[in-house]
Amino acid sequence: MGSEREKNVEGGIELEGMDDERKEKFMKEDEKLSVERIFENKEVPSWRKQLTVRAFAVSFLLSVMFCFIVMKLNLTTGIIPSLNVSAGLLGFFFVKTWTKLIAKSGMLRQPFTRQENTVIQTCVVASSGIAFSGGFGSYLFGMSEQIAQQSEHRKDGFDYKNPSLGWMIGFLFVVSFLGLFSVVPLRKIMIIDFKLTYPSGTATAHLINSFHTPEGAKLAKKQVRELGKFFSFSFLWGFFQWFFTAADECGFAKFPTFGLQAYEYKFFFDFSATYVGVGMICPHIINVSVLVGGILSWGIMWPLIENRKGDWFSADLPPNSLKGLQGYKVFIGIAMILGDGLYNFFKVLSRTLAGLFLKLQERKANSQMPVTQHSSPSIESQSYDDQRRSQLFLKDQIPKWFAVGGYVAIAAVSTATLPHIFHHLKWYHIIVIYIFAPALAFCNAFGCGLTDWSLASTYGKLAIFTIGAWAGASHGGILAGLAACGVMMNIVSTASDLMQDFKTGYLTLASPRSMFVSQVIGTAMGCVISPCVFWIFYNAFPDIGYPTSAYPAPFATVYYNMAKLGVEGFSALPKNCLKLCYVFFAAAILINMIRDSLGKKRSWFIPLPMAMAIPFYLGSYFAIDMCVGSLILYIWQKMNKAKADAFGPAVASGLICGDGMWTLPSSVLALAGVKPPICMKFISRATNSRVDKFLGS
Amino acid sequence: MGSEREKNVEGGIELEGMDDERKEKFMKEDEKLSVERIFENKEVPSWRKQLTVRAFAVSFLLSVMFCFIVMKLNLTTGIIPSLNVSAGLLGFFFVKTWTKLIAKSGMLRQPFTRQENTVIQTCVVASSGIAFSGGFGSYLFGMSEQIAQQSEHRKDGFDYKNPSLGWMIGFLFVVSFLGLFSVVPLRKIMIIDFKLTYPSGTATAHLINSFHTPEGAKLAKKQVRELGKFFSFSFLWGFFQWFFTAADECGFAKFPTFGLQAYEYKFFFDFSATYVGVGMICPHIINVSVLVGGILSWGIMWPLIENRKGDWFSADLPPNSLKGLQGYKVFIGIAMILGDGLYNFFKVLSRTLAGLFLKLQERKANSQMPVTQHSSPSIESQSYDDQRRSQLFLKDQIPKWFAVGGYVAIAAVSTATLPHIFHHLKWYHIIVIYIFAPALAFCNAFGCGLTDWSLASTYGKLAIFTIGAWAGASHGGILAGLAACGVMMNIVSTASDLMQDFKTGYLTLASPRSMFVSQVIGTAMGCVISPCVFWIFYNAFPDIGYPTSAYPAPFATVYYNMAKLGVEGFSALPKNCLKLCYVFFAAAILINMIRDSLGKKRSWFIPLPMAMAIPFYLGSYFAIDMCVGSLILYIWQKMNKAKADAFGPAVASGLICGDGMWTLPSSVLALAGVKPPICMKFISRATNSRVDKFLGS
Repeated sequence: MGSEREKNVEGGIELEGMDDERKEKFMKEDEKLSVERIFENKEVPSWRKQLTVRAFAVSFLLSVMFCFIVMKLNLTTGIIPSLNVSAGLLGFFFVKTWTKLIAKSGMLRQPFTRQENTVIQTCVVASSGIAFSGGFGSYLFGMSEQIAQQSEHRKDGFDYKNPSLGWMIGFLFVVSFLGLFSVVPLRKIMIIDFKLTYPSGTATAHLINSFHTPEGAKLAKKQVRELGKFFSFSFLWGFFQWFFTAADECGFAKFPTFGLQAYEYKFFFDFSATYVGVGMICPHIINVSVLVGGILSWGIMWPLIENRKGDWFSADLPPNSLKGLQGYKVFIGIAMILGDGLYNFFKVLSRTLAGLFLKLQERKANSQMPVTQHSSPSIESQSYDDQRRSQLFLKDQIPKWFAVGGYVAIAAVSTATLPHIFHHLKWYHIIVIYIFAPALAFCNAFGCGLTDWSLASTYGKLAIFTIGAWAGASHGGILAGLAACGVMMNIVSTASDLMQDFKTGYLTLASPRSMFVSQVIGTAMGCVISPCVFWIFYNAFPDIGYPTSAYPAPFATVYYNMAKLGVEGFSALPKNCLKLCYVFFAAAILINMIRDSLGKKRSWFIPLPMAMAIPFYLGSYFAIDMCVGSLILYIWQKMNKAKADAFGPAVASGLICGDGMWTLPSSVLALAGVKPPICMKFISRATNSRVDKFLGS
Repeated sequence: MGSEREKNVEGGIELEGMDDERKEKFMKEDEKLSVERIFENKEVPSWRKQLTVRAFAVSFLLSVMFCFIVMKLNLTTGIIPSLNVSAGLLGFFFVKTWTKLIAKSGMLRQPFTRQENTVIQTCVVASSGIAFSGGFGSYLFGMSEQIAQQSEHRKDGFDYKNPSLGWMIGFLFVVSFLGLFSVVPLRKIMIIDFKLTYPSGTATAHLINSFHTPEGAKLAKKQVRELGKFFSFSFLWGFFQWFFTAADECGFAKFPTFGLQAYEYKFFFDFSATYVGVGMICPHIINVSVLVGGILSWGIMWPLIENRKGDWFSADLPPNSLKGLQGYKVFIGIAMILGDGLYNFFKVLSRTLAGLFLKLQERKANSQMPVTQHSSPSIESQSYDDQRRSQLFLKDQIPKWFAVGGYVAIAAVSTATLPHIFHHLKWYHIIVIYIFAPALAFCNAFGCGLTDWSLASTYGKLAIFTIGAWAGASHGGILAGLAACGVMMNIVSTASDLMQDFKTGYLTLASPRSMFVSQVIGTAMGCVISPCVFWIFYNAFPDIGYPTSAYPAPFATVYYNMAKLGVEGFSALPKNCLKLCYVFFAAAILINMIRDSLGKKRSWFIPLPMAMAIPFYLGSYFAIDMCVGSLILYIWQKMNKAKADAFGPAVASGLICGDGMWTLPSSVLALAGVKPPICMKFISRATNSRVDKFLGS
C-alpha cells in the first residue's frame, strides 16, 4: 500500500503493487539511459511551487476514495494490495484534466510537473497509509466489545474500548507524526550516501517520470481509460449486487458456486470484483498460497477436528467459542503468522545490520578520499542523473533542530495525552516506547530500503507482547498491549513511508521539503479521514467484526487473541491446539527457510506461510476470487503479454477501486435505513419444497 | 432456418441467418470475379460419388444436434434464426477433421469436395427443417390435450389428439415427400431460365465455395475455433445454471434483473445464451421490434386491461382462461400475425405473378432467337461461370415420369392413411389439398426465389381456416383444420427448400440428382429424428405447453385458437377484444405498407409487426436477451467491424448450439429423474424474513 509497500506485513498483509519483474524492468531502464537528459529543458519549480492547492485538492479526493477501499479490504480479509499504480494514474488523470480545462479558459498559471505529481502521490499514500496503520482492521478495532466478547466468556466482565470518533482522531494525531520527525535527519545518509534502493519508491518514481514523457503520457491516457472502464463496471456490478441482498444470507456474496456442501466449508466464488482485482495484482504464488491454505484448513483440518467434537472440545459450546473449533482456527493461524513474522524479522534484521556495517565501511573509505564538493561520493564516478538529483536533493535542507525539537515536543504531548485515552497504558510505558522507537524506526526504514519489506506490524506485535506482559492481566494488559502496538506501528510505518517518498522525490527531482510537507499534510488528512470512514462502516453495518458478517475484520480477532496470549499464556487454548500451533509455527519457519535456501527462481512453487494463514480463519472464498483474477491475468498474458503487462494493473485497479467506491453509497444507504428489496436465496431442493408449501399456504 | 430460410414465417418465425448486407456482399463477389476459374482444375465427381457415406454420417450427427436446437427454440419462443452458417462451418469442420485423420492413416480414397459439402448442407437443412415444419411447436402440438384444455372450459369434453411417437412419424413420412416431387420438374425453368436469385441459397453456395479456397479454409478454421469456444462456454453455462433450478421458480431463468415488479410483467434478463446468440444473428430491427412489442403489450396494454377486471371480463376466472386477460394476449397476437401474414401473402403473390409474367415473356422472346445449344439463354451472353454451371446442372436429369409418378403414388398412400390418423380429416379434404398443393408449392418456391420469403405457414393457415370451416365445429373442425395445416405446410415448405438447394447445387456444381437424393435422405432422417427429439422433451418436461413452463410452446396455443376462431367464429372472445383485434390487424397491415412505401433504407426505424406480436403472449424476457445480443454485436462492430462481421455469426452460432446441446443431457437427466440440488430463489425482503422465521423455527 502506498509507498510503505510492505511486502509481507501481518495484521493486514500488504502486498506490493508491482511484481518484482516489473520493478526490475523499471530499475534497469534507469541504468540504460539518462532520464534526466530527457527532462533537461524542463524547469524544476521551487519547493513552495511544488505544493499547489490543486495537488492537495486532488489528493484529498483520492484519499477519501482510497480510504474507503483500504477500509473495505481491512475489514473483509486484511489483504491489501498496493494501490500505487492506480493512485498514480488517477492523480495524473485528475490534474491533467484540471490543467487542460484551465488551460482552455486561459487561466493556467503553472503547468503540471512531475514534482507536483510526486507531491500528490506522497500525500495520497501517506493519507491512505493511516487507514492501514491506524489499525481499524487490527489492534484498534480489536479493543472493541464485539471482538472481546467473542473471546471472553467470563461473567465478571472484561476490558474493552469501543471505537469512538473523538479518541480515534486524537490518538492518531498524537502518534502518527513521530515517525516523520524521527528519520528526517537521516535522509542524506540513506538516500545519497548509502544509495539504498527502496525498490517500490524507485518504481513509483519511474512510473511518474514515464507519465511525463510524451509517449508515457499517451500510454497513461490509455491506461486511465481502461481503469475507468473497469471502475464503472465494477461499481455498477456492486450496485446491481446490492439489490439482491435483502438479508444476511442473500445475494451473490453467498453464491454456492460449487454446491451447498462446499459452501458450508466456505468454498465458493463470491463474485467480488475487489478480490478478483487483488488477485490480478498479487503475484500468482500468493493467490495459490491462499488457496492452498484454504484447502489445507477448511478442506482437511477443520472437518477432521470437527469429528473430535466431544473429545477434544465440548460439544455444547456456542459455535463462536474460542474453546471450540473456532479456537483452532484462530490460534493455528496466529502461530503461523508469528512464525513467519519472526523468521522475517530476524532475516531482515540480520541483513539490515550486515548492510549497515558494509555501508558504514564504504562511507569511511569514501570520506578518506579527496572530496571536491560537499557531497561525499566522488563526482567523477557519478552519472549525470546522479549529479543532478543529488544537487537538487541537497538544495532544500530541513534543519536538524527542527526534527529533534519536533520529535521531543510531540512525544511530550503524546506521553501526557495517551494515558487519558487508554487508562491501562501508563506514562512510563510510553516513554520506554519513545526511547526505543527512533532506533526501530531507523531499522525499519533501512531494512525497507534494502529489502522492500516493512516490518511495521512485527514491531507492533513486539510491543503487544512486551507491554502487555509488563502491564499484566490484572491491569488490563490486553488493552495496554494493543494500544502500545498502535503507537509503535504508527511510528515505524510512517518512518519507512517517508524514506520511500524521499527516494521517489530524489528520482523525480522533487524537493525533500515538499516531500516532508506533503507527507505531513497527507498524514493529517489520514488522521481525520480514516476514523471517519471507519465510523461510517461501524455504524452502517452493526454486525461488523462477527465471523458471519460481510465485514468479519479477521485481524481484529487475531490481534486481540495475540494480546490475550501474551498476557494470559496458553491456558485459554483447547485440547491439542497448542501442539498444532507449535507444528504450524515451526512449519512456517521451515517453509521460509526452504524458500530462501532454494533461491527465488527454484522456489516458485513453494507457498508463502503468511498468505496461507489468512484463510485459516476466513475460509477460501476470497482465495477463489483471487485465483480467478490470477487465472484471468495468466490467460491474458498467454494471449498478449505486452498488452496484459501494460493494462493488467490498470484493469485490476479499476476493479478494486470501483467496488471499493460502491461501499461509500452502500454504507450511506445502510445508514439511511434503505434496505435492498430482493433476497437472492440459495436453498436445497428439500428446503425449497418446504418453503414453497409454507408460502403457498 | 436451413435453406428454407423463411424471412418471416408465422407460427415459428424463421429468420435468415445472414443479414442482407452480408448476402449482398456474397452476391457481389460473384459478379466481380469468376469463381469457377478458381476451381477449374478441380474435378467434379459424378453424382453418385458426391453422395458419400461420411457425408451422411456427419449429416446425421448434425441433424440430431440441430433438431435439439430447433426444438428448443420451437418450444420456448418460436423464433428460429438460420443455423445455416453453423451447419456449414460444423459440416466443413467434421469432414475436414475426418479426411485429415484418414489421410494420415493413408486410407483416404476421395478428397473432400465442395459438392460433398453441399450434400451435407442440404441433408442437414432438410432434416432440421422438419423439426420446424413438423409443427411440434405449432399445429401438431396444438392438437394435444394440454393446449386444448387451456382454451376449452366445457364439461362435456372436447376433441384433442395427444402426441405419440407412432402416428407422428407416420404422418411426417406420408406428407413430407410430396413437396419434393411436386417441384422437381420445374428446376430448369426456375434456376436456368428464370435465373431466380434465391438469396439464401446463393449465400450458402458462396459460403461453401469460400470454404474450399485456401484462404477461405483458413478463415473457416478460425471461425470454427471461435464457434467451438463459445459452444463450450454456452454448454457449460447451461450446465452450471441447471444446478440452481431445483423447482419451477428457481434459477437464472427467473432472475428478476430489473426488480420483482418488472419480473411480474415478464421484464427480466433470463441469462439464456441461446437468445443472446439469436439476437446477434437477427438484424437489429427485429430485436428492437420484439422489445417494442413487449413494452407495448406487457408494459402498457395488459396492465391497463387488467384494471378493467370485473368490467371487461369476470374477476373470478382462473388466470389461464381465454375468457380473461389471457384471451386478449392470445387473440390480439393472432390478429397481428394474421394481418402481417395476409399483407405479405398478397405482396409476395402479386410480385410472384408479376415476376412470372415477365419471365415468361422473356423466355418467349429468347426462344424465338436462334439457339445453338439445347439450353435457352444464348451462349454468347453467358459468362464462363454460367456456362460451366448450366452444363453441369443439365448433365444429370431427373425424368419427368419419375416426379409425376412419385407425387401420385405418395398422394394416394397419403390419402388412404391420413384419415386413419386424424379421424376428422376426410379423404375428400385431402384430395382437394393435393390438387391445389402443386400450384401453391410452385408459387412458394417461385416467391421464395424472388424475395427470399417462404410463406409456408401462411399457406398452412389458409388450410386451417378453409378445411376447418368445411369440416365444421360439430365434426372436430379444429383438429381437421390443424391436420390440414400440417399437410399443406410440409408440402410448400419442402418445395421451396428443394429449390433453394438446387440453386446452391447449381452454384457449387453439385448435381441436381445428388441434391434430390440428399434432400430425400435428409427429409427421411428428419421424419424420424424430429418426433423422437420432441418425444424426449414431451416426456422429460411434463409441464410443457403451459404458460409458466420453461417450454411454453406459444405457437401451439396460437394455432389451436386460430383453428377455433376459424371453426367457431368470434363468440369465444372477451369484451372489447374483437375491437382491439381489428385495430391491431389493421395496424399490422398499415405498418407494413409504410415500411414498403418508405423503402428499405428510410424505414430502418419502423418495427416489424410480426416480430412485435411474439412477446404479446410470452412477455419481454427473450426480447431483452435478444437486445443484449444486438448490443454486443453493435459494440463489437463499432470496435472492429471486420472482425465482428467475420466472427459474429460464428460466436452467435456457438452460443445457440452450445445451449441447445445442453438440452440433450438436461432432458436425459429429467427423464432419469435426476433433479438439481439447489434452488436459487428470488423473494422480496418481507417474504424473506417470513421464510427465515419459518426455517429458523
